[in-house]
Formats: sequence, structure tokens, C-alpha cells
Amino acid sequence: MNSLTVHQAAERLRDFDNVLLLTHLRPDGDTVGSAAGLCAGLRALGKTAYLLPNPELTDTAAPYFRPYAAWAGFQPDRVVSVDIATTDLFPENAKPYADRVDLAIDHHPSFTGFGKENLVRPSAAATGEIIYDILAELGPITAEMALPLYVALATDCGCFAYNNTTARTHAVAAALLQTGIDFQTVNKTFFRTKSRKRLALEAAMLGGVEYHDHERVAVLSVPLSLISQVQATETDAEDLSALGGQIQGVDCAVTMRELRPDVWKFSLRTGPRVNATKACALLGGGGHAAAAGCTVEAPYAEAKRRMLEAIAQVVPDFTM
Amino acid sequence: MNSLTVHQAAERLRDFDNVLLLTHLRPDGDTVGSAAGLCAGLRALGKTAYLLPNPELTDTAAPYFRPYAAWAGFQPDRVVSVDIATTDLFPENAKPYADRVDLAIDHHPSFTGFGKENLVRPSAAATGEIIYDILAELGPITAEMALPLYVALATDCGCFAYNNTTARTHAVAAALLQTGIDFQTVNKTFFRTKSRKRLALEAAMLGGVEYHDHERVAVLSVPLSLISQVQATETDAEDLSALGGQIQGVDCAVTMRELRPDVWKFSLRTGPRVNATKACALLGGGGHAAAAGCTVEAPYAEAKRRMLEAIAQVVPDFTM
Repeated sequence: MNSLTVHQAAERLRDFDNVLLLTHLRPDGDTVGSAAGLCAGLRALGKTAYLLPNPELTDTAAPYFRPYAAWAGFQPDRVVSVDIATTDLFPENAKPYADRVDLAIDHHPSFTGFGKENLVRPSAAATGEIIYDILAELGPITAEMALPLYVALATDCGCFAYNNTTARTHAVAAALLQTGIDFQTVNKTFFRTKSRKRLALEAAMLGGVEYHDHERVAVLSVPLSLISQVQATETDAEDLSALGGQIQGVDCAVTMRELRPDVWKFSLRTGPRVNATKACALLGGGGHAAAAGCTVEAPYAEAKRRMLEAIAQVVPDFTM
Repeated sequence: MNSLTVHQAAERLRDFDNVLLLTHLRPDGDTVGSAAGLCAGLRALGKTAYLLPNPELTDTAAPYFRPYAAWAGFQPDRVVSVDIATTDLFPENAKPYADRVDLAIDHHPSFTGFGKENLVRPSAAATGEIIYDILAELGPITAEMALPLYVALATDCGCFAYNNTTARTHAVAAALLQTGIDFQTVNKTFFRTKSRKRLALEAAMLGGVEYHDHERVAVLSVPLSLISQVQATETDAEDLSALGGQIQGVDCAVTMRELRPDVWKFSLRTGPRVNATKACALLGGGGHAAAAGCTVEAPYAEAKRRMLEAIAQVVPDFTM
């Protein structure tokens, strides 16, 4: 991989013009905020820069993306990808640019280095943290840059509550807030607001939670019937797997979501006692030690039984 | 009020010895963490310092308090109160010290300046932010000081999600994290863990939510029957009034909790359209524009009707 330092990446961007910025499939706050912040920074240098429209943009992220969305005929000279670990995560309309990414900037450990030049820093809580460092090299950080960068930073570290938060994350947040941005609205929108449908989903999931292994394993399920009863959208159902991890005493939260009739997507969120990726690997999935997933084609009871057996195999003291 | 600067307060503390630190009634993370952090700082200077035991200490805050709790016979030469706005908020065992507080340190706008000398900074998100500044004057900040100070800081600003968070809050957090503290366990305990009873309370409240005023006003209730059905403790029922404020589209969340049969404590959490303190004042209560409360003695339906009528009186476009 052709790797750059922050300083080198800043120098490249200083030379670029007519830049198209790419965001990833199922765009989150980090990819949107990082791209928008970088776009604002490039425009502040007098450059032409746009974000390639992302077909899956959510309502919450859209206001930060829209001011920078490219018009249909924009022909870039340079292409920069932001927060995209692999070209597999390019949205359909970004695929034509897969082999002409001049600079790829990312923080995922799984980053494949697909750019002609690449800047990756896995210790960054968000790609927005890296973009901040680049922009700080290029000139003063304005509120226009700081607002989307705050979205990037805060969403990827769960508003500074997740374990990927570092002293550096807080230091960057301090610098961003110093520009006078309305971070309060960002916090309210992303961290202190839930749709009524979302709340109905959560209430139903918690109402039906099932415990195993001395109440250390919790199984929460989202059958298709619940989704249709609540009329929940994809946004309402996003990241439901975090819910079970909150239950006191539970160190293995199993969330099973029915994708199609009798096809269940499992998400595990676990503490140190349970290796989530080992359990999911037994059913053809994978992930990290504390967060992993897999898909099982079987009726509800059978799918659940297979997952509990997989967990039992990797956890020595498991009791059904 | 006899007011000190941070520098002056640090100089006083440098001269003090045999110090007793006081925390407030219904102790929260800020009062406990600030007192423990200050106590660790004083001990690092070779001084004798203790926290007066607080009879209402919660399980989550206790581990940060316990290492500094005073033994029964401790006779202080100096008394310092931390995060206490008025002597009315002294726990019963602190009352004997009410007229001999040498230094009172607080961040509440309602601080009455009851100390012989006082340091108040209402712009601080937490009293912990002020204690950090004092300790930074007195010497290097160690992990022993930083851990309780992080508890103080993070709990009072909702893990950096509340509107009282500032650039300074993040800058202090960055400095605290730099000492290498296990802030992850603090975040998990305070922000990412809920008891099963707490979750059951929330599910029941959300299941029974009632909307008014074009779904902008939500009424959530916690009758005594629910508390006893769930066997919820005071800790489980803490800060339930935040729940309704999360519902998308709601700018007036009314939480009514039955304290005794037919005695309801109302908590309002509102957006700019609804002045919570004006509505509650009509029923003999008070608070802030965005958060206020009052108590109504009446059966459920009657109590609710009175509150909705009070809101209608202060909100011009309210529709039942």
C-alpha cells in the first residue's frame, strides 16, 4: 500500500482541483461528515469540490451532505474516498471510480489500501479525526468545516461513550466546539431523539427478551411480524443490536432479526467472557471479539437453538 | 458573597489541612467525583483529607467515594463543600457543618454563597471542571485524581451530549484521559448499562404514552402500581423524566410519578415553544425554562387534566 502521512495528504490536496469525494454504502455520520468537512475545507482553498450523491443517505445525515452534493454532469479530475474500507463498500454509482481513487482516507483496521495513495490511522475514533488534522495543516478550521466534522466524530464514538474514544478525540472536539458550531442540535438529533416507531420496536424487543446461562446471555428478536406491525423503516431498525448490550449483568447480547421468512441475521455484542467472532464463525459468520454476526436459514426456534449451541461451544461455563 | 478566583482557592487549599469534604443530598456523579478528585489532590500534597459519608450514596457512585470516606472520629480543621448550591441540600449528617464551611465550590446558578469563601462558575458543565482547574494549579494531575473527576464531568453533561457541554469540557476530558484512566468502565457503568427493572419501567412508560397537542405533548406516567409490580428501587427510577424528551416530534414531555397514593410529582422537559417553569408555576412548582416540576395532589386523571390546562395557559397554540 502506498501510504501517506497527514502532512503529505494535505500537500496532495493542496495540489488537487475538481475533486469528487466518495462516501460508503449505508452511509453513517462519519463518512458523510468527513466528506462534507473535507469538501468545505477544499472550497475554502478556492477549489471546486463535490460529494458524489449517495442513494442511501438517511434523513438525519442529509442536511450535512446536501450543501455539497455534486450535480449530474460534474466531471472530476481527482477522486478522494473517505471512511471507505474496501471498494466492496462503494455505492453502485461510485463503482466506476473504483480504480481511479487518487487518495483514500480511512480509519478502519480492515482498510485495503485501494487508493493510488492512502492515509489510514486505525487509532482514530473516526475518519473525521484524521480529516481535522489534514484541514488544520491547510488553514484555519471554520465553523462550516467544524459542524460536519463534529457529526463525523461524535457519531462514530457514540457521543464519546464508546471505547474507541481517546484523549485526541476530545481534544479535536474541543477545537471544533471552539468555532461556535451548533453542536447541540447535532447531539439532540443523533443521540437524544428516537422515532416513535423505534421506541415501539425497542419496547417490544425488551418485552420479549429471553435469558440463558444464568441471565448472562440475552436473546432479543425482531421478527418480520414486528417490523410490519410497527411499520418500521430501515432507519427505525438501525443498530438495534446495541440494545441488549445495555442490560445489566448481560455479557452476551444476541439480537436476531428476520430478514426474509425464516432467514435470521444474528448480531452478537459481548464482554470479555464470550468471543463473539468464534461463536459466529461456527455458523459461517465473523467480525470482532466483542461484536460479530452471521445469518441462519431456519425457523425461529431452530435458528435460536443453533446460535445458543454455538455460544455454548466457545464458552466453557455456559449453561442453557 | 466572598468570592475567590481559581488561583485564590488553590492557595487556600494549599494552606488547609485536616480537611472534611461535603457532598449533597441525593448525591450524583458530580458531587461524588468532584469531592473524591479533590480529596485525592489534597492527599497528593501530603494532607489529611476525607469525605463525610453520604447516607444516600448509590451503588454506581460508591466505588469512587469509598476510598476517601471519613472514619467516625475524624475531627476536621477545615470544611469544604463541593457541588452544593445551598445548605438545604446538606445531608442530615452534614448539617452541623452548615455554618463552618471554609470554602464552598460550585457551578449551580442558584448557588447561595454560604461559605466563608466561595468559588462559583456557572458556565462550568460540572463542578468537576472547576476542581480540575484548581488541582492543575496545585501540581500534576494523577490518574487517581483524574478518574473521579471524569465521573464528575461526564455524568453532569450526559457524556458530552447535553447542552451544557463546552469546548472547555472536552479540553478537560482530553487532559483527564491522557492520564491513562479506565474511562471505558465509567462510560459502560453510567451510560451504557440499565438494570432489568429500569428497562421494564421504561418499556411500560413508553407502552402507555399518551399524546396531546398534535403529538407535540407526551404524557408518561409512573403509578405506584408500576413501581411495585416491577419492584423498582429509587436507583431504577432515577431521572425517568428524560425518557419522554427523546420522542421524535415531542417538545413537551410530561412525566408524572405517583409519590404516594394520589400525590403526583410532575417533571416537564420542553423545547423553546413551551416554558416549563411558567406551566409548573401555575401549579405551585418551578425550575428552568426547559426543565421544571411541581407536585399535584389529586387522582391520576384529575392531576393530568390540571397539568395539561396549565400548559395550555402558557402555550398559545396548544390544542387538547
